[in-house]
Amino acid sequence: MKSIGVVTPQSMHFSEPLPLQSGASIADYTLVYETYGVLNADRSNAVLVCHALNASHHVAGVYENADGSLNHGWWDNMVGPGKPLDTDKFFVIGVNNLGSCFGSTGPMHPNPATGKPYGASFPVVTVEDWVHAQARLMTALGIEQLAAVMGGSLGGMQAMAWSTLYPDRLRHCLVIASTPKLTAQNIAFNDVARQAILTDPDYHGGNFYEHGVVPKRGLRVARMVGHITYLSDDDMAEKFGRELRSGAYQFNFGIDFEIESYLRYQGDKFSSYFDANTYLLITKALDYFDPALPFGGDLTKAMAHTQADFLLVSFTTDWRFAPERSREIVQALVNNKRRVSYAEINAPHGHDAFLLEDERYMDVIRSYYGKMWKEIEQTPLHKVAA
Amino acid sequence: MKSIGVVTPQSMHFSEPLPLQSGASIADYTLVYETYGVLNADRSNAVLVCHALNASHHVAGVYENADGSLNHGWWDNMVGPGKPLDTDKFFVIGVNNLGSCFGSTGPMHPNPATGKPYGASFPVVTVEDWVHAQARLMTALGIEQLAAVMGGSLGGMQAMAWSTLYPDRLRHCLVIASTPKLTAQNIAFNDVARQAILTDPDYHGGNFYEHGVVPKRGLRVARMVGHITYLSDDDMAEKFGRELRSGAYQFNFGIDFEIESYLRYQGDKFSSYFDANTYLLITKALDYFDPALPFGGDLTKAMAHTQADFLLVSFTTDWRFAPERSREIVQALVNNKRRVSYAEINAPHGHDAFLLEDERYMDVIRSYYGKMWKEIEQTPLHKVAA
Repeated sequence: MKSIGVVTPQSMHFSEPLPLQSGASIADYTLVYETYGVLNADRSNAVLVCHALNASHHVAGVYENADGSLNHGWWDNMVGPGKPLDTDKFFVIGVNNLGSCFGSTGPMHPNPATGKPYGASFPVVTVEDWVHAQARLMTALGIEQLAAVMGGSLGGMQAMAWSTLYPDRLRHCLVIASTPKLTAQNIAFNDVARQAILTDPDYHGGNFYEHGVVPKRGLRVARMVGHITYLSDDDMAEKFGRELRSGAYQFNFGIDFEIESYLRYQGDKFSSYFDANTYLLITKALDYFDPALPFGGDLTKAMAHTQADFLLVSFTTDWRFAPERSREIVQALVNNKRRVSYAEINAPHGHDAFLLEDERYMDVIRSYYGKMWKEIEQTPLHKVAA
Repeated sequence: MKSIGVVTPQSMHFSEPLPLQSGASIADYTLVYETYGVLNADRSNAVLVCHALNASHHVAGVYENADGSLNHGWWDNMVGPGKPLDTDKFFVIGVNNLGSCFGSTGPMHPNPATGKPYGASFPVVTVEDWVHAQARLMTALGIEQLAAVMGGSLGGMQAMAWSTLYPDRLRHCLVIASTPKLTAQNIAFNDVARQAILTDPDYHGGNFYEHGVVPKRGLRVARMVGHITYLSDDDMAEKFGRELRSGAYQFNFGIDFEIESYLRYQGDKFSSYFDANTYLLITKALDYFDPALPFGGDLTKAMAHTQADFLLVSFTTDWRFAPERSREIVQALVNNKRRVSYAEINAPHGHDAFLLEDERYMDVIRSYYGKMWKEIEQTPLHKVAA
């Protein structure tokens, strides 16, 4: 299979303030994005891929690091020439969300009002805010209607929000390993992570940039607890079990079990590159997502004005966003007589399965885009241009 | 139902060193304990109740606090006159384990070798070490054979260890909401908690006593993550759901959801009384418990020399120590042709269910002790006196 090869991010500045769900607004901002493939003449083959917690606009292809090592896009197995989302056919866009720490305007950037980094004063942004910002970028790129919006986990929430906020601007909505809202347990895990960061003395009320430190301890614990929820119990048992690092108990608080070594390594790595304020913001966006809230909790009503066709995918061992959560979305769409396909993939890897190779999963996505491509060839014109 | 009323802890000093599984030993130590009911003339009605992570020897009855408030024993609903473990019939003993922070020798006590608090130098103790210490106390109390050893969660592990280490010193073994060993996921959660404590700057390498501080931030996060694993997803959804503290999103990192308020409160409360070194020690004891390890992982072999009759109880929504874990113990006992009863209680409260009122659960325990009582009346003499 061919690879996209080396890719280069682009950026676009927006000087019109973005009003936010909180009532605040962002005066001006920059979005960093990448594109793969070629936009066709009638601009009908564009697919927006939305990222989850710790990912970015770097969806596919590779960066060449200064040391010659390669940094692959987080969904490089999904997006590329001949891949399930085939860039020989589709024009794919990845956008880094506002508040993130990979280039788009975020807490580490200067607040134009003060000249100092936003820090904790960066406004709390929601999934819906992100979608409005993405929609502006699509307009700026000349894309009135997307062939599809697609995302996994938090990315799937953005795809859902597109379908309700801009019903006529997407033909298809692909929601993978996602949920219509977080459970109390999901929120609880997020709050543990936030408390670990907020109470790290190096957090300095969010202004740690000025102090030349990073709340690494908090970020590390946050990542460790998050990571547990991304894997299935069985998968952890299979990969690590009770395997001992040194073959025997150490009778101290160093490393006994391989799982400890793995999680601490993941935590250390994460805390070396991820921004603490971004972590807080993104977990809040997760907690707040609840499209049924303005409709008294009625998801069917919330989805009533969607126009897209839907593909939902869930994974049997995902206990973070369990298949039951996807089925709730499917039910709401069926209640509204939307065209909806649903695949529940029997996969051992828990929530993380949406990022991994799985033949059945990849086949489902490939086949869905194959049908979409035929449809685009037959009716290339926009169904509606706003 | 009558209550035991006000109870008073007792203590016993042991000057003979206790050799530990690690190869270290504790030179001399004190165990704090409580007893309820009356030891009968032939000393055949004694039941040892073992405590879990954050509990103590204060199993039943009440303490009257200085301010007049009452501090009930952690299993006061289970142990008392006319209760499932009936103190009108049985003589019940609760012992605070070594390394704990409720009176028995622990990290906050002076190391006789240095005169300074043990701190992190308190030796890592195991479930088996605790059982050896408990056995010495039983001997000192003149109890050669216990009618039963009973415990939930970590307490259940101690009951299991009694059955393998001192097969002839207990007639019955009651193992509730427990497991033959922790899974990788269980260990992972424990390690997150430990890392939160160990990296808290106020931990000071375990010698925080000398600095006049307490690693409250770490303990708080440790308790929050632990607490999530004690409750079931459904129970959390039922109790808290997505209920908002102030009826609307706050768009900051204060409290939005009731579940956040609850968990932070639990974390704060815990960090105000629990010792950080004890938390580390007890989670290690949990991680290390694995009676099948010396038998190449064969639990049937590990249980081969047990002589007790067994009651196992698990709870359907317990995802920390799931029913499947109890069934593994049952299977190992059945393979050894032991007399074993097993109840899987359909209860919504997750792991915590073992501490809560549930009619079917209480009936199972009551009925088991009822049969035990008849047996004791019929054959009061010890089966074997070592």
